[in-house]
Amino acid sequence: MTLLILLRHGRSEWNEVGRFTGWTDVDLSDGGKEEARRAGERIRDEGITFDVAYTSVLKRAIRTAWIVMDVMDLMWVPLYRSWRLNEKHYGALQGLSKEEMTRKHGAEQVHAWRRVYDVRPPPLDPSDRRHPSHDPRYRGLRPEEMPSTESLKDTLQRTLPYWFDEILPRIRNGSDVLVAAHGNSLRALVKHLDGIGDDDIAGVNIPTGIPLVYEMDKDAVKGRRYLASPDELSKAKEKASRASAFTRGRSAEPGP
Amino acid sequence: MTLLILLRHGRSEWNEVGRFTGWTDVDLSDGGKEEARRAGERIRDEGITFDVAYTSVLKRAIRTAWIVMDVMDLMWVPLYRSWRLNEKHYGALQGLSKEEMTRKHGAEQVHAWRRVYDVRPPPLDPSDRRHPSHDPRYRGLRPEEMPSTESLKDTLQRTLPYWFDEILPRIRNGSDVLVAAHGNSLRALVKHLDGIGDDDIAGVNIPTGIPLVYEMDKDAVKGRRYLASPDELSKAKEKASRASAFTRGRSAEPGP
Repeated sequence: MTLLILLRHGRSEWNEVGRFTGWTDVDLSDGGKEEARRAGERIRDEGITFDVAYTSVLKRAIRTAWIVMDVMDLMWVPLYRSWRLNEKHYGALQGLSKEEMTRKHGAEQVHAWRRVYDVRPPPLDPSDRRHPSHDPRYRGLRPEEMPSTESLKDTLQRTLPYWFDEILPRIRNGSDVLVAAHGNSLRALVKHLDGIGDDDIAGVNIPTGIPLVYEMDKDAVKGRRYLASPDELSKAKEKASRASAFTRGRSAEPGP
Repeated sequence: MTLLILLRHGRSEWNEVGRFTGWTDVDLSDGGKEEARRAGERIRDEGITFDVAYTSVLKRAIRTAWIVMDVMDLMWVPLYRSWRLNEKHYGALQGLSKEEMTRKHGAEQVHAWRRVYDVRPPPLDPSDRRHPSHDPRYRGLRPEEMPSTESLKDTLQRTLPYWFDEILPRIRNGSDVLVAAHGNSLRALVKHLDGIGDDDIAGVNIPTGIPLVYEMDKDAVKGRRYLASPDELSKAKEKASRASAFTRGRSAEPGP
């Protein structure tokens, strides 16, 4: 049995102040670093290890991977970065206040931008300096790959090729894998792995800092579990819900 | 013109207490972390950047690379690890006190083990738990690649294939490169790049934490300079000399 460990990065500096982040390269907050340390301890204390690690090109996910590797004394393990594991691109919303957008556009609209499978936030203009075409880390992307905004569907469509081309072949080969990434790129992987429908995926949420371990037999998922007690898990989900509740009229999910 | 930045990691916890380190996976001391931060600032303040980075599978070099990438806001740059960039293997001397070995075997013998091009320290027994064959990070090595001890010549012979196969092709392609590594793996690269003879290489020393920048035109070295003032550079060399002077009868070079 081969292990796939999915880990959503902990809270970032912009989570703390309630701004849309997306591809903005915001660092972990001190609390987020502590979440990463705890995640590393959870994996280590389970007697689990990994042979190769993957992350995005955004520092909040990279730092999460670094902290886990450091805690587990696995700094020597190969770590590969790809823009395909980035958070969903939030278009022109990036950098704006979630609360203000909710006041301006209503909770339903903000919820749709954040969660409805094929809804895209308003795009960033390519001339905007926040547009990825101005960032050297994306200079290898083809024009049609360079997003100005993304729905979860778009995120999934650019994440899955990396899964099939890079990650899954390692698992087939018997390597245990860590993927340290973001709410939506991980949601894309989970949607694929667990065969979740387009409507249902909006209700699926991966809490920050709690490793989610899949047991794989080649391509097949044989089991899945969070490395936390049921009590810890429900607290982590509840905490994340409270943090972003102001953008929803009803029950709430943590925001990206 | 393409840039190759060589950076020797700063002081480790065993440097501070005068033990032979080699392939032992000792971390940077607090002073070594500070050296890495200063190195990152020196590169950044020079207006230099890099497109890809290489390091060993030893955490004192990996952490040096991480700190530089963090200071320079380049955490997204690909970082590749290879055992071929490891420090020279010090055989059965690893973990032993340099001072004690000098008392026991004499300064000339210890100097020969440390510096004469083709002299190897006494080997580690393969059954010794410190032997690399017991460490998962080396499980991909062929038996003939697994060292029990190394001369500088051995180090050079396993380092240069990585230079030719991995690093030089990137430089030929126009990528600026950082190599964060060790006293002897960097000495091997410098011996090759600058065409230094077998006897003369013992006298060549790369100070810790001071980036050494080569200007390359494809395979050809067009220039080289340390990112430090002449005064800072001579202080760094002098400081490193003092630290290991007790293993030498005459003038001294910093130890690995």
